[in-house]
Amino acid sequence: MAKEKKVREITDMEVDFAQWYTDVCRKAELIEYSSVKGFTILRPYGYAIWENIQSIMDAQFKKTGHVNVAMPVLIPESLLKKEGELVNGFAPEVAWVTEGGSEKLEERLAFRPTSETMFCDHWSNVLQTYRQLPMLYNQWCSVIRWEKTTRPFLRSREFWWQEGHTIHETAEEAKHETEQQLDLYADFCRDVLAIPVVKGRKTEKEKFAGAEATYSIEAMMKDRKALQSATSHYFGDKFSRAYNVTYTGRDNTLQYPFQTSWGSTTRLIGAVIMTHGDNSGLVLPPAIAPIQVVVLPIAQHKPGVLEKAQEVCDKLSASGLRVKGDFSENSAGWKFAEWEMKGVPLRLELGPRDIEANQCVIARRDNGEKVTVSLDELDTAVPALLKAVHDGLYEKALQNLNEHTYSAETVEEVKAVMDNGGGFVKTMWCGDRECEDKMKELCGVSSRNMPFDQEHIADTCPVCGRAADKMIVWGIAY
Amino acid sequence: MAKEKKVREITDMEVDFAQWYTDVCRKAELIEYSSVKGFTILRPYGYAIWENIQSIMDAQFKKTGHVNVAMPVLIPESLLKKEGELVNGFAPEVAWVTEGGSEKLEERLAFRPTSETMFCDHWSNVLQTYRQLPMLYNQWCSVIRWEKTTRPFLRSREFWWQEGHTIHETAEEAKHETEQQLDLYADFCRDVLAIPVVKGRKTEKEKFAGAEATYSIEAMMKDRKALQSATSHYFGDKFSRAYNVTYTGRDNTLQYPFQTSWGSTTRLIGAVIMTHGDNSGLVLPPAIAPIQVVVLPIAQHKPGVLEKAQEVCDKLSASGLRVKGDFSENSAGWKFAEWEMKGVPLRLELGPRDIEANQCVIARRDNGEKVTVSLDELDTAVPALLKAVHDGLYEKALQNLNEHTYSAETVEEVKAVMDNGGGFVKTMWCGDRECEDKMKELCGVSSRNMPFDQEHIADTCPVCGRAADKMIVWGIAY
Repeated sequence: MAKEKKVREITDMEVDFAQWYTDVCRKAELIEYSSVKGFTILRPYGYAIWENIQSIMDAQFKKTGHVNVAMPVLIPESLLKKEGELVNGFAPEVAWVTEGGSEKLEERLAFRPTSETMFCDHWSNVLQTYRQLPMLYNQWCSVIRWEKTTRPFLRSREFWWQEGHTIHETAEEAKHETEQQLDLYADFCRDVLAIPVVKGRKTEKEKFAGAEATYSIEAMMKDRKALQSATSHYFGDKFSRAYNVTYTGRDNTLQYPFQTSWGSTTRLIGAVIMTHGDNSGLVLPPAIAPIQVVVLPIAQHKPGVLEKAQEVCDKLSASGLRVKGDFSENSAGWKFAEWEMKGVPLRLELGPRDIEANQCVIARRDNGEKVTVSLDELDTAVPALLKAVHDGLYEKALQNLNEHTYSAETVEEVKAVMDNGGGFVKTMWCGDRECEDKMKELCGVSSRNMPFDQEHIADTCPVCGRAADKMIVWGIAY
Repeated sequence: MAKEKKVREITDMEVDFAQWYTDVCRKAELIEYSSVKGFTILRPYGYAIWENIQSIMDAQFKKTGHVNVAMPVLIPESLLKKEGELVNGFAPEVAWVTEGGSEKLEERLAFRPTSETMFCDHWSNVLQTYRQLPMLYNQWCSVIRWEKTTRPFLRSREFWWQEGHTIHETAEEAKHETEQQLDLYADFCRDVLAIPVVKGRKTEKEKFAGAEATYSIEAMMKDRKALQSATSHYFGDKFSRAYNVTYTGRDNTLQYPFQTSWGSTTRLIGAVIMTHGDNSGLVLPPAIAPIQVVVLPIAQHKPGVLEKAQEVCDKLSASGLRVKGDFSENSAGWKFAEWEMKGVPLRLELGPRDIEANQCVIARRDNGEKVTVSLDELDTAVPALLKAVHDGLYEKALQNLNEHTYSAETVEEVKAVMDNGGGFVKTMWCGDRECEDKMKELCGVSSRNMPFDQEHIADTCPVCGRAADKMIVWGIAY
């Protein structure tokens, strides 16, 4: 009954997906609203997920030679304005510091919406020779974009992210970096978050302000909407020229380096929630779960139960797993519901009869399956079950993506998909902005990206009927 | 010659300590100035030191049950103003956001100078029962304080720090937390940074705005000035009352929790530089050195040298050490100077004759001592040498602290110490603010703290001559 009550606090996703999402974010204690409009608080459980994401991703960045730095959070307006497209893209969303230390500032300072300008400014001071290239920088920080409507993790005025910024001797190297980092994000989604994604190039309309090319990974949520989960940009030497970043090349002449940037944010937590969550709450992939196994003693007042449960916790912790024993006075039903809500991948139950039989029962959060495991085999059984949970989550997410990705040859077919529950729709596209806008107008979808895995769906653009050789994916974006 | 040239770029500390310090910060590529006045950039080498500090300290916080969170960076003016002393203490240093998304805000938002207010505001929303206590929170972030004069790491308008904020059921628990965290900082300085500190309580004049008691650790730099290296505050229930943070206690009545906060910053890097550095540059304690061992092949064009050097690098890396092989074309002299400047604890030299004899030469950065080590014994010899460097650094720093800590019974004696190269001076103190101010006026010193290790120096206050039973330490503060 306690369980029912707790779960009843979460709206069913079939009833109201948006409300279900907000309920999970708050009931699982991931975030809380603050007194500052549009700003959220990452609570311990939510932040612990972000810490796990950070630590795994950061190690991967470092493997390919990237180093972390910290750039100033405030950017002088004049510096921001040096690259016209960038400032036009971000100006409407900037928060401005205009007073410091009781005095009005001579020049407004922008709270960074992104840091291309600061990196370029720094490089213009320290870059001298090709021997210093490439410079492969990254920083973990928060940024502000003054959004009008906000939602936890998906769109908030402040969010936490990593922004990679690199400069290279040649365009080829920079392009390679752009692709390498996109691949890293896609692999991270698959291997760490258990989320399949569609890799591709953004259209001119959807690309990053000032970029020559923007690439994205797009994931499908359980409501079949698209979540752009990370982006990678190639800038050519445009910013280098705007910010006068130069170096002496191998031929002893002054050169402009080629540049990239790439980013992923706390939005990834939103992707996890909406890809794997269910009506009992959060479902976390084991790699980022703050608690991978919760140990619940059954009939814990019986002699020896708590001691044995503690022993199991210690043993699993010692093998490097993140384990919590819930020895509180709450009822078993309450505990089941609580840790389901919090998305813990495995629940290990241990009662007097289990102890007698030198075994325990382990339940998987992803599909509810229970298995009985000998206490002597925990060291191998638990990691195997965690892997099974990860694989199970990925398979289910892949199935959702595959089942709801359609091909269409006409606008009517696209519209039919969107009227019938939605999803991703692949069509050909002539490349014209007008047709992209028209598709939005007629079907309510925006272009997600032009996938690297191209298919030949038809010969013509479904909007204008002209010849088209690019396949594009449409969807409704978060 | 190359070495001399490089080192000559650093001003001798005996000639101009402040210039030496700035030279080291910049030549070792720890920081760089930015286009935003008073804001510095943490470059990769400087940030790597901060990452090491973070990762070790964060693990220690977690051992005692602390969890990380992320609070909004902006604080509404009305919220900041709820606790009068706090806002009075920080108001002159606040940076204000007054425009967001092209519109003037109805209320100014402060860039956090510290986050007591945000934590209290959050707790007032989520705290309900004593069962939730204690809440042991921490966050790693940057803050802004609009300082008029700035110096790398020591005083800059933006700096990076951790701020711990906790609430407890009883005053005793909160006081214990305050002391526990001060001890943690002191132990961290000793065991990780090789810096001895003086633990004690701040005077009313020097305490944190709004705190009931502030405790600090004070370290002595090579110029004998004091660096306040971390602080820990006890607030009683003052902020809880101001922000209406309440919970239902064990007796079913509404209670106000007792609160602490404690912080340490990138200033610790400044402490490391000025405690251990020398005229050749930085000297890093092994625990936080981004590179613990630099491997330099000698006569690297000779057959087999580079291969063997790489092998040594791989072997040391595999044993968990942070190792870099410098196989560049630069001269040996240039490399020696470069890695000395960067403060790498151990330099491992390996030439053809060494290889023949299955050995290498390892030089310690802290004292220049060289030892010959068999290549078969690297696994034990290198960790032992790193420990020796740590211990050597600590001993030298302790000697500096002890040799330049004086006891004085009169103002004249204090003045004599300060006129004679300075240091820490212990005197008795009556407890009056007037005498504290007078000491500053007459001797140019401020009170550092009232050490936990009290001594009886005299019966009276050296300023007013009245009876005094507290010992206090004076110094010139950074």
